[in-house]
Amino acid sequence: MMIVDVEENDDVLVPPTNFSMVEDGIFRSGLPQPSNFGFLETLNLRSIIYLCPEAYPQENMDFVDAHDIKLFQFGIEGKTESSSTSIPSHTITGALKVLIDVRNHPVLIHCKRGKHRTGCLVGCFRKLQTWCLSSVFEEYQRFAGVKWRATDLRFIETFEVMCLRQCLYSIIYQYQGYGSNKRRLLYQEEGIQKPKIKSI
Amino acid sequence: MMIVDVEENDDVLVPPTNFSMVEDGIFRSGLPQPSNFGFLETLNLRSIIYLCPEAYPQENMDFVDAHDIKLFQFGIEGKTESSSTSIPSHTITGALKVLIDVRNHPVLIHCKRGKHRTGCLVGCFRKLQTWCLSSVFEEYQRFAGVKWRATDLRFIETFEVMCLRQCLYSIIYQYQGYGSNKRRLLYQEEGIQKPKIKSI
Repeated sequence: MMIVDVEENDDVLVPPTNFSMVEDGIFRSGLPQPSNFGFLETLNLRSIIYLCPEAYPQENMDFVDAHDIKLFQFGIEGKTESSSTSIPSHTITGALKVLIDVRNHPVLIHCKRGKHRTGCLVGCFRKLQTWCLSSVFEEYQRFAGVKWRATDLRFIETFEVMCLRQCLYSIIYQYQGYGSNKRRLLYQEEGIQKPKIKSI
Repeated sequence: MMIVDVEENDDVLVPPTNFSMVEDGIFRSGLPQPSNFGFLETLNLRSIIYLCPEAYPQENMDFVDAHDIKLFQFGIEGKTESSSTSIPSHTITGALKVLIDVRNHPVLIHCKRGKHRTGCLVGCFRKLQTWCLSSVFEEYQRFAGVKWRATDLRFIETFEVMCLRQCLYSIIYQYQGYGSNKRRLLYQEEGIQKPKIKSI
């Protein structure tokens, strides 16, 4: 039945394994294969956040070059449950800064299988969105399945979003002001700095 | 740790169980509880597709009334694997018509647990999007987990999207024309009917 479908329709789309939408303009998946490139084209990606330390595969590099997609690589070792070293949180912070910068959207986050490293980054992003922790874990586990790791959940739980949130508040403040300071917006000539959002 | 988080932040958001984004303006979940209403407000829903035959719970009805959300109910029995009767495909077709009508977006699809009925509707929607069947199944199983049902996969596989697709092509044709008929757009005064997309 499936083969008939494929034969009838040359445009059949094959999303990468573990593909999903996270938010408007944010997607997640495992490592895209050449068979997924047709699908990826439909996303009109502006950037990719790649979470493995290995060099980006040549076919994938050709794809991002051909479509003028920015590649942000944050090399995080693919650990096993028994590993004692944990994900460096400053790496996740760096990736989060790229992720929340709408100038990079639409953006695809991926590692190898789209379970652990991607799951940790999305989990930290959900904390930033003030999702309750049990919902963050539920989403993590939906993608990790039986491969879920207690170390990942612990990483997500203890990851400190407050600092990043304050940084965001400070940007919002510079843009809009808040409370009784809202008038500050009116005095741009007073030398209030334009917000600078830095990627990486 | 989580309780501390909740106490620190009154705005903690609790998405419904099995919540996820499907596409821009399309969400899926299990039955929302009152504790999820704060989160649902952030979605600015215009409509809800409810797939159970049971009357909508009063709290949920109050929520949709208060937020001027249109409720589309398509009563599908919650079956068990052993059940011999299958989902009526015309009911799914009806729900699909509401789902793809952007005037209803943002829309939330939900049944009770967000696994089987919701999974079947989303699966048929993916076929309409020309996703390959193995990717459709992967997504279905991510949400159904160990509760996945072979009958649901069979339903999705055999569901006929061609008729609905032709109906869409005919709407697109009326809007834009295609191929050598593109000029038809120029002659609206010739009595070419305006497309009428009917909900339900």
